[in-house]
Amino acid sequence: MPTHDLLITHATLLANPADGLLCENGYLAVAGGAIVEIGTMNDLPLHPEAKQIIDASGKLVLPGLINCHSHGAMTLFRGLADDLELMTWLNEHIFPAEGRLVDDNMVYWCSKLAAAEMIMGGTTTVADAYFHEDAAARGYCEAGMRTIAAQGIIDFPAPGVPDPAHNITVAAEFITSWQGKNPLLTPALFCHSPYTCSPETLQRAKKLARETGSLFFIHLAETQYETTRLKEQHGHTPVSLLHDLGLLDEKTICVHCVWLEEGDITLLRKTGAKVVTCPESNMKLGSGIAPLAELLEGGVMVGLGTDGCASNNDLDLFQEMGSCARLHKDAAQKPTRLPSLTLLGMATEMGAEVLGLAGQTGRLAVGLRADCIIIDHKQPHLTPFHTPETLIYAGRGSDVSTVIIDGRVVMQDKRILSFDLNETLDEVRKLAKRVREEG
Amino acid sequence: MPTHDLLITHATLLANPADGLLCENGYLAVAGGAIVEIGTMNDLPLHPEAKQIIDASGKLVLPGLINCHSHGAMTLFRGLADDLELMTWLNEHIFPAEGRLVDDNMVYWCSKLAAAEMIMGGTTTVADAYFHEDAAARGYCEAGMRTIAAQGIIDFPAPGVPDPAHNITVAAEFITSWQGKNPLLTPALFCHSPYTCSPETLQRAKKLARETGSLFFIHLAETQYETTRLKEQHGHTPVSLLHDLGLLDEKTICVHCVWLEEGDITLLRKTGAKVVTCPESNMKLGSGIAPLAELLEGGVMVGLGTDGCASNNDLDLFQEMGSCARLHKDAAQKPTRLPSLTLLGMATEMGAEVLGLAGQTGRLAVGLRADCIIIDHKQPHLTPFHTPETLIYAGRGSDVSTVIIDGRVVMQDKRILSFDLNETLDEVRKLAKRVREEG
Repeated sequence: MPTHDLLITHATLLANPADGLLCENGYLAVAGGAIVEIGTMNDLPLHPEAKQIIDASGKLVLPGLINCHSHGAMTLFRGLADDLELMTWLNEHIFPAEGRLVDDNMVYWCSKLAAAEMIMGGTTTVADAYFHEDAAARGYCEAGMRTIAAQGIIDFPAPGVPDPAHNITVAAEFITSWQGKNPLLTPALFCHSPYTCSPETLQRAKKLARETGSLFFIHLAETQYETTRLKEQHGHTPVSLLHDLGLLDEKTICVHCVWLEEGDITLLRKTGAKVVTCPESNMKLGSGIAPLAELLEGGVMVGLGTDGCASNNDLDLFQEMGSCARLHKDAAQKPTRLPSLTLLGMATEMGAEVLGLAGQTGRLAVGLRADCIIIDHKQPHLTPFHTPETLIYAGRGSDVSTVIIDGRVVMQDKRILSFDLNETLDEVRKLAKRVREEG
Repeated sequence: MPTHDLLITHATLLANPADGLLCENGYLAVAGGAIVEIGTMNDLPLHPEAKQIIDASGKLVLPGLINCHSHGAMTLFRGLADDLELMTWLNEHIFPAEGRLVDDNMVYWCSKLAAAEMIMGGTTTVADAYFHEDAAARGYCEAGMRTIAAQGIIDFPAPGVPDPAHNITVAAEFITSWQGKNPLLTPALFCHSPYTCSPETLQRAKKLARETGSLFFIHLAETQYETTRLKEQHGHTPVSLLHDLGLLDEKTICVHCVWLEEGDITLLRKTGAKVVTCPESNMKLGSGIAPLAELLEGGVMVGLGTDGCASNNDLDLFQEMGSCARLHKDAAQKPTRLPSLTLLGMATEMGAEVLGLAGQTGRLAVGLRADCIIIDHKQPHLTPFHTPETLIYAGRGSDVSTVIIDGRVVMQDKRILSFDLNETLDEVRKLAKRVREEG
């Protein structure tokens, strides 16, 4: 009887990307969805037994990447309205298109497309945030991704929540219906921002999050406009407003944090609140540059997010790592700023800590769930491969050949196995046609 | 008898990327290496005749991209020493490694690897600049790329030119030996910089360039240090120094131009000198941000370059376009800055003008040489494909499936046809092993 469900052999292992240490000729054994053994091929019998064996000769195996912030369903709006001012973009393009098109069907198919894109690019865990999140959760579960799915809350009529008076109720129902339902999916809450949610809404949402043990996501300090406005209205920076309202704790995840002021980083560290940075989205929208080195030096945990496809326009964390490193070196005029291994750590182990999943994923270690990706690093653009840092500056999502999530092979040799990709592409194209015809 | 050498049918044509206009169900006919017909499938007989027919159903066909500045042989140093201060990087890593390893053999194989990477990423024309450039020229010719090959000139002992007193003679011999030899290759000169070449060397090099009708490349105003130093030594900015020495004209190509001052852009425009920007390299080295919008608005022609693999670390012009657009939006805090089509234009038609190749390449038009690439835009990360702008923000080199240069299919369905890629990879890996062992 085979000992293991899955055995990956002859691999070059990068078990803990943040340390950059490669182990040549390694193997990894999986049983019951968990990593049960890691070692070198010398430790294996000559003809090892397993239900499935993947020979990773000449390939690199590392933990799957963790996308700490995205709006998967927005794949539908990829490239719909580029190069526009933020408010023109939102008010004349994105909000109207969302108002017309976002429903269960759209969110289900477009989140599934996002899942396909992320899996194909080596992302095994996503923190998604949108409306009709129940449909997104179904899509991600069928794709086999490890998912934090956060239902959106906003004080305006929103897709699936026409009356904002019900926004907390809808979110509560979402949490209840998904808790304990699927081991890969954790429901959560996503308040859009402190300028679109009242202090009362924010407090009610955080109360619900605390009662249900859920993560609380919020867009925070994304633009200078937001910070200026909140200071005028409340006499607080976005971070200090949240602190004043009692919302900052270890399960609060502040997305963007571009416009921080003195004291904000200390508040984040003291409360244990987490941050997610989305550099490509901030760049494309001209929102500014988050003080990432200062956050990390200040002891704040920071994950990496792609944001949605309307402002990025892809979900490729390899390119996000490269962009992030280059952006901050450039902004500081300091090539030593944000070394590559810091980025690899943010996209794996630290990302897992941000999402409260450090005991499950983010490294290749015995006892953790088996989330790992296999990369062909013998291609021309990765040759020579002197060090793993090459993944940051020359790697791209398309270098990933095989993806395993929770011990299941969801993509092998670039073919998605967990669901019918062509069906999803067809359904999204039908919706895209409507976007253009009704636009 | 077949009328055409090659026929590409059922394509979505993006003939002139800068205008963003797609022509559905188009065809393109090639004879004698040139584009001889472009039209829609309705204009073709039901069973057209050609020596080779490529069905591009559901694919996008556009002109090949133009990399206006690279040091191909530096692929060997990809990822060798990342995240270091410029001078530490140069003096402790790159210069010593170059001193030990750069010879005809290294330049030949590593330039060929660069050619493979560029072809696979949709680049059909490269302006290369290095030492032992004769070996680089041989490599690019065998790979079938359209190439401007510029022999390096520097007032220090350099690979292949141990005595700098001979730097102009070596360059002159290079020009003579390659002029008229291969229709795809144009020899040129590359002075390293105004701080590593004396005014006399610069003038002698430009004189040689004028006598032979060659392009004259130079790294210019890359760092603040360079600009400060030249102002102290010569009382001139880098651009005004070149102007003062009589070096600026339509065949002078100034690479980087990050640190420009008042009057510099006017001098560049008035003299017709060209500029190449290498945003990813500038970002990674923390060199600063070129005033790209100001250059374009000032009427200066600007091409896009990847620079060498030691400072980028890849040769992917699709990612370079995306990085360039995001960088400048971010720096200006203006999402309308540098629209995507401007970038597509710089990487095609304007790039051809910078290199003096506008009559040959950069667009799909009857009479031009047949340099074109076929892209699979039905993949998840490019779906939906509302507009060609999607190529800028979500496209990557690996989306290119087939590449035609001068009418020859050099890559088909991601397989390099023009030379033995595995042999090249093996040879570069042998050299890479030496880099690490002797490093």
